[in-house]
Amino acid sequence: MSKVSFLGAGSWGTALAIMLAKNGHDVTLWSAIESEIDMLAEYREHKNRLPGAKLPDSIKLTKDLKEACTGYDLIVFAVASPFVRQTAQNASQYITEGQRIVNVAKGIENDTLCTLRDVILAEMPQADVSVLSGPSHAEEVAVGVPTTVVVGSVKRESAELVQEIFMNDRFRVYTSSDIIGIELGGSIKNVIALAAGVIDGMGFGDNTRAALITRGITEISRLGVKMGGRMETFMGLSGIGDLIVTCTSEHSRNHTAGYLIGKGYTTEAAMKEVNQVVEGVHSARAAMALAQKYQVSMPIVEQINKVLFENLPILDAVHGLLVRDKCNEYPGLDWNE
Amino acid sequence: MSKVSFLGAGSWGTALAIMLAKNGHDVTLWSAIESEIDMLAEYREHKNRLPGAKLPDSIKLTKDLKEACTGYDLIVFAVASPFVRQTAQNASQYITEGQRIVNVAKGIENDTLCTLRDVILAEMPQADVSVLSGPSHAEEVAVGVPTTVVVGSVKRESAELVQEIFMNDRFRVYTSSDIIGIELGGSIKNVIALAAGVIDGMGFGDNTRAALITRGITEISRLGVKMGGRMETFMGLSGIGDLIVTCTSEHSRNHTAGYLIGKGYTTEAAMKEVNQVVEGVHSARAAMALAQKYQVSMPIVEQINKVLFENLPILDAVHGLLVRDKCNEYPGLDWNE
Repeated sequence: MSKVSFLGAGSWGTALAIMLAKNGHDVTLWSAIESEIDMLAEYREHKNRLPGAKLPDSIKLTKDLKEACTGYDLIVFAVASPFVRQTAQNASQYITEGQRIVNVAKGIENDTLCTLRDVILAEMPQADVSVLSGPSHAEEVAVGVPTTVVVGSVKRESAELVQEIFMNDRFRVYTSSDIIGIELGGSIKNVIALAAGVIDGMGFGDNTRAALITRGITEISRLGVKMGGRMETFMGLSGIGDLIVTCTSEHSRNHTAGYLIGKGYTTEAAMKEVNQVVEGVHSARAAMALAQKYQVSMPIVEQINKVLFENLPILDAVHGLLVRDKCNEYPGLDWNE
Repeated sequence: MSKVSFLGAGSWGTALAIMLAKNGHDVTLWSAIESEIDMLAEYREHKNRLPGAKLPDSIKLTKDLKEACTGYDLIVFAVASPFVRQTAQNASQYITEGQRIVNVAKGIENDTLCTLRDVILAEMPQADVSVLSGPSHAEEVAVGVPTTVVVGSVKRESAELVQEIFMNDRFRVYTSSDIIGIELGGSIKNVIALAAGVIDGMGFGDNTRAALITRGITEISRLGVKMGGRMETFMGLSGIGDLIVTCTSEHSRNHTAGYLIGKGYTTEAAMKEVNQVVEGVHSARAAMALAQKYQVSMPIVEQINKVLFENLPILDAVHGLLVRDKCNEYPGLDWNE
């Protein structure tokens, strides 16, 4: 049995906290939103984000960040991307040297173009931060749907600790040393999921969506490999796996937001309707900036940015993707002549 | 304008013939099934396989194989996998040296473990045979849903001829030199789609399906690379792209057959219910034999074979996939220690 603390009690944090408590661990759940902790205390259930999933009695709740950061084998960072830096800044004073942390949120910080692990490390360089990602809708994990994820760490022992704590016969955890590959896939997939939602909202078919997902992972991996990630990771659970689930599932907020835009909503109206953080809108600008910084071509990211922020009509965006020069699929698959 | 002939008038052949006629080509459609040609002649529509899609007046129909093989810039092979060898054998006498052919069917021949292009070449070595594959349900191509595919050829000019003939602003064609990678992805995806159908039929969630698709392309690429294919191809349209559409679309017969098995049907009952060739059932044994021949681990293919042919209860098969040792995602992503 391990002592595990969660910073962040949204749908993902809550689902994982429930799972770890059922795995037999001693779990504490903290949120910066006091009313969220009050609700969890009153109903033992996250009424808004994860209705129907009951918190086991053993889960402790706290509003005290110091308490949530002191004396744990593992701290799970589960706050939405826009709040990661502030949370890390506030928590840093309580974090001891070598404290093991696993970040389960996904995103790229707009101003700095840092991944979330780098944001956490910038605020608490004394921590040992792993990342966990993969095709894992919180709603399904909460009810025990068979799920697989990958955990990436600098040290093998840190990855294996997370694997040991999280794994059960419905939640399979693989390990990896490719942290940047895992983080990139998890962040930029939300931008592609927005685009997939737009395609679906416009009423195109399965062929179109599969093409978008495939060309999407191609451009994500093109960027990711340039940033030091490994091709295998983009073919894996945190790459194409997470992209598939985000682009094809009704649970995905990013897909839903895109779908509404495809139906004619403005970006603002779509975000208001979804009424949760739509990571893809935050990540779209960052992905474009990274593409420019690393000089890689990312046509889907480019078109979705134009739709989101420059009022490009969606039909023009699709046209811009489909009607391009004849070319080969990958430059590496050309003929030797 | 090119002269193009189709051998095979099922859903895929008919959909592509309609599209090429609309592209402005001179198209002839042949089928070994006389009643199929009679129906197409009477209704100018494939009533069973592609209802609602009208044949343009310019499409010629024929029951005469010699006529269908003589004097064309390109012959499209569009017969279901079990009938490819016989069709190639019958047609070979009419095929001139260097005749350009593109095969659009997918499968592995059970007895020989040959891909369909190799089957065609064995019967007509004088032909120049390309392959075309990608996420492309016939039902969607017939109504102009934006679709992308890849064509693989030994010679660049052959690939570019197919690209030139097929491409339009709703149907994007990429070229590639990796024929074996394209064929492998297209064949074995049907086995994984069967497994995805089983998972869905059992009522598992999106997380589980995404995991199956991801681990599925991993094992397909493991085999394919060993057989000489390129990793990029398995990440591309004919690899993961086609796998996604086959595993997530209601149009897929393989997914439907698997779904029924997941609901408790026997293999025979499921195939009878689907009432079309279920390529995945034919390919499952061949995929297993290839895995053994090339000594690669293909756990999903192995479990689906046991379900299809050895009456393994489906819950045991899922258990066999989920409850395995803790491991890293790819051996290549291990730590350097």
